[in-house]
Amino acid sequence: MSVTAPRGFRAAGVAAGLKSSGNADVALVVNDGPDAGVAGVFTANRVKAAPVLWTQQVVRGGVVRAVVLNSGGANACTGPAGFQDTHATAEHTAAALSGSSARLLLGAGEVAVCSTGLIGERLPMPALLSGVRTAIRGLSRDGGLPAARAIMTTDTRPKTTVVKGSGWTVGGMAKGAGMLAPAMATMLCVLTTDAVAGPEALDAALRAACRVTFDRIDSDGCLSTNDTVLLLASGASGVEPTEAELTAAVTAAAHDLAQQLIADAEGATKQIAIDVVGAASEDDAVEVGRAVARNNLVKTALFGNDPNWGRILAAVGTTTAAFQPDGVDVAVNEVWVCRAGAAAEDRSKVDLTGRDVTIRIDLHAGADAATIWTNDLSHAYVHENSAYST
Amino acid sequence: MSVTAPRGFRAAGVAAGLKSSGNADVALVVNDGPDAGVAGVFTANRVKAAPVLWTQQVVRGGVVRAVVLNSGGANACTGPAGFQDTHATAEHTAAALSGSSARLLLGAGEVAVCSTGLIGERLPMPALLSGVRTAIRGLSRDGGLPAARAIMTTDTRPKTTVVKGSGWTVGGMAKGAGMLAPAMATMLCVLTTDAVAGPEALDAALRAACRVTFDRIDSDGCLSTNDTVLLLASGASGVEPTEAELTAAVTAAAHDLAQQLIADAEGATKQIAIDVVGAASEDDAVEVGRAVARNNLVKTALFGNDPNWGRILAAVGTTTAAFQPDGVDVAVNEVWVCRAGAAAEDRSKVDLTGRDVTIRIDLHAGADAATIWTNDLSHAYVHENSAYST
Repeated sequence: MSVTAPRGFRAAGVAAGLKSSGNADVALVVNDGPDAGVAGVFTANRVKAAPVLWTQQVVRGGVVRAVVLNSGGANACTGPAGFQDTHATAEHTAAALSGSSARLLLGAGEVAVCSTGLIGERLPMPALLSGVRTAIRGLSRDGGLPAARAIMTTDTRPKTTVVKGSGWTVGGMAKGAGMLAPAMATMLCVLTTDAVAGPEALDAALRAACRVTFDRIDSDGCLSTNDTVLLLASGASGVEPTEAELTAAVTAAAHDLAQQLIADAEGATKQIAIDVVGAASEDDAVEVGRAVARNNLVKTALFGNDPNWGRILAAVGTTTAAFQPDGVDVAVNEVWVCRAGAAAEDRSKVDLTGRDVTIRIDLHAGADAATIWTNDLSHAYVHENSAYST
Repeated sequence: MSVTAPRGFRAAGVAAGLKSSGNADVALVVNDGPDAGVAGVFTANRVKAAPVLWTQQVVRGGVVRAVVLNSGGANACTGPAGFQDTHATAEHTAAALSGSSARLLLGAGEVAVCSTGLIGERLPMPALLSGVRTAIRGLSRDGGLPAARAIMTTDTRPKTTVVKGSGWTVGGMAKGAGMLAPAMATMLCVLTTDAVAGPEALDAALRAACRVTFDRIDSDGCLSTNDTVLLLASGASGVEPTEAELTAAVTAAAHDLAQQLIADAEGATKQIAIDVVGAASEDDAVEVGRAVARNNLVKTALFGNDPNWGRILAAVGTTTAAFQPDGVDVAVNEVWVCRAGAAAEDRSKVDLTGRDVTIRIDLHAGADAATIWTNDLSHAYVHENSAYST
C-alpha cells in the first residue's frame, strides 16, 4: 500500500514520456489532511540538484500538501534554468490541484519536488507538466504502488513499506539502486503517516530514523546530488503517538526501505552486513564499518566468494578509530578467521555461497557497536554503470 | 638498468618457490658503498606488515647495506611469529652476505626487508632463506632487471627507471598494480643513487618526491599494509649534488615509476590524469582530484567511454574544498562539457577512444593546482580481484 496506507493520502504514477522505455516516470503524492506537517532530510553533497534546493525551502515553510517526483532526469547541474523548471513544476502542480476535483487549494510553496535520473540535462517540461495533469486525474487511495513504480530508475522492483501503530500508520516508498552512500539519505523516499504530530516531533523522528538506517547503507560510496527523504503527516487518524512511538515506527519503515535498497543495489550478488563491535564509540564503529563497506578489494573478494579477512583488516587500518592492530578479531559468516590481527580458524570453513554475508569486526576497544550494510562489487555493477548514464 | 644503474650496487632476482607459478619471487639489492645512507617512506595504514615494522626500525638506524624483497606473500597480519620471520630473514641475509664473496660485513640491523602478496599467511621460511642464498650467489651489476621482475605480483611488466645527474645517477625499481592509493607510497619501490648525500638530504629529497608522485596516484582507493619506498645512497660517484639537484632527480625517477604503476594498474583500460586548477590551495586541489579518482561511478563511466561530467561534479561536491557549485568548469579531453556547473559544449565532441584521458576541473577559487593520476574501473579489475587473493 506504500504511501497511501495511512489515511489522508492519495497517490498516482503515470508514464509521461520522460523515460525512453515508456515506463511510468511521474509520481504524485497528495496529503488531504487535515494536517500538512512535513520534515525532510537532504543530500550532504554540496552540488545539490534544483529540486533539492527548492524542496529544502518548501520544507522550511513547514507545510507540504503535495510531492511531485519524476524519474528520467535528475535536473541536477542545470543552472538557473533548471531551478526555474522545478519552480514551474511546483506552480503548475499547485494550480492544477487547486482547479481539479482534488478539493485542495494550495500554493507552489506547499509542493515538494524530487527528481532522479541523468545529471546535467534539462527536463522536457511540456511532457512533465502533462504528466502531472494526468497524475492528478488518476489520484487515488490505491495509487501507492503505481507511484513507487514511477520513481524507479535502475531499480529492478518498487520499494514500499507499511508499519502499523496503535490506531495510526506509517507508509513509505523509495527508489535507489546506485549512488547510495551514507552521510545522507542516499535516494528518493517519501514517508507518510496519519498520526497527529507537530513539526518538531516529525523532524526529530525523521532525523533519528535516517541516522541508523539510510545513513548506514553504502552501495558504492558515491553520494548523489538528489537524495531526499520526506515525512508527511496528515493527522487523519486523530491519534497523537508519543515521540518515542513515532520515532520507532518511522525508523522501522526507513529500515525496511533501506534494506530493500541494498538488496536491489546495482549488480549486487551479495547483501552484506558489517557489524562492528567492541568500539570505543558509536562514531568509531560507523567509521570502521564504512571504510570496509567502501573498500573495492573487500567488495570484489566477496563477489568471488573469498573470505579475504586480510583486505578487511587493511581497510580497518585506514581509519582513525581506537584499536590495536594486533587486537582485532574478524568473523565472516560466524567463522572467526582472524583473531588478534592474525589468522585463526581455517578460512575454508567459511560458506559464502549464499546471498547474505555477515562480517563481524571486534575492535576490543570498548562497548559500542554499529552496523553498516553494503553489497559486493560485481561485473554487473561495472556493466550497468559503464553502459548507463546517470 | 634499474637499481644497478648507479655505481656501488649489485642485485639479483631468483625463483625460490614462493609463487605457485614458479616465477622469480626473491630479489636482493646490495649497496657496496663506500656510503650506506638510507631514507624511507612507509604506508600510512595503521595495520602494517611485519617487514614494514622491521624496516622502519632499520631506516631509523640510518644505515642499510642490503634490501631483501619477496613476492608471493605479504607477511601482513601474521602476528609476532610473522615479525620473527622478517627478523630471521634479515639475520640470515646479513650472515650469508658476510660469509660470502660479497665482501661485506654487516648486521641484521642493516638489512631492510620488503614483502608483497597475500595478506594473512606465513611465509615458507626454508624456501625464502634458500632463495636468499641463491640470490647472494647471483648478485651482479646486471641484476637490476631480474630483481625488478622478482617483485612483480599482478604486474604485467617490470617497472624500472634511470635518471642521470651530472656525474651521478638515480636508478629504481617498483612493483604494484592494485591496492594503490595515496596517503603513501602505494607499493614496493627501491631507489638507488651513487651520489654523495647525508641522511637529511636523502630524507628531504625522498619525502618531497613522494608527495607529488606516489602520493598522487590512486588506482582503487585501497591503501596497502606493505607500502615501502626506500632510497639508498652509495656515494660511489664521489659527487655531492645540491639538495635541489638530488630532489629533482629523485622526483623524476619516482614520477617515472608512478606513471608505470598507473599504466599497469589491474584491469585498467584508461590512464587518467585529473588536473585540478583554480584551487584556493594545493590541498584543496589534491582533495578534489582524489575524490574524483576514487569515485566508482566516474571510473565506470570512463571505462564505458562516457564523458559523464555530472558524476565528476557530484564527486567534487563531496569535498570540503573552496568552490561554488555554480562556478565549476569541467573539460574532458580538452572539451569543456561543463561551464559554471551546467552543460556547455556538446559531450558528443569528446573523443574517449584512446587510452589516455585528461579531466580538467577549474574550481575558480584561486591560483593553486595539482594533478592526480588514476585509471578506470573495468570488468578485468573485478575479475582479477575476485579471482585472485591478495
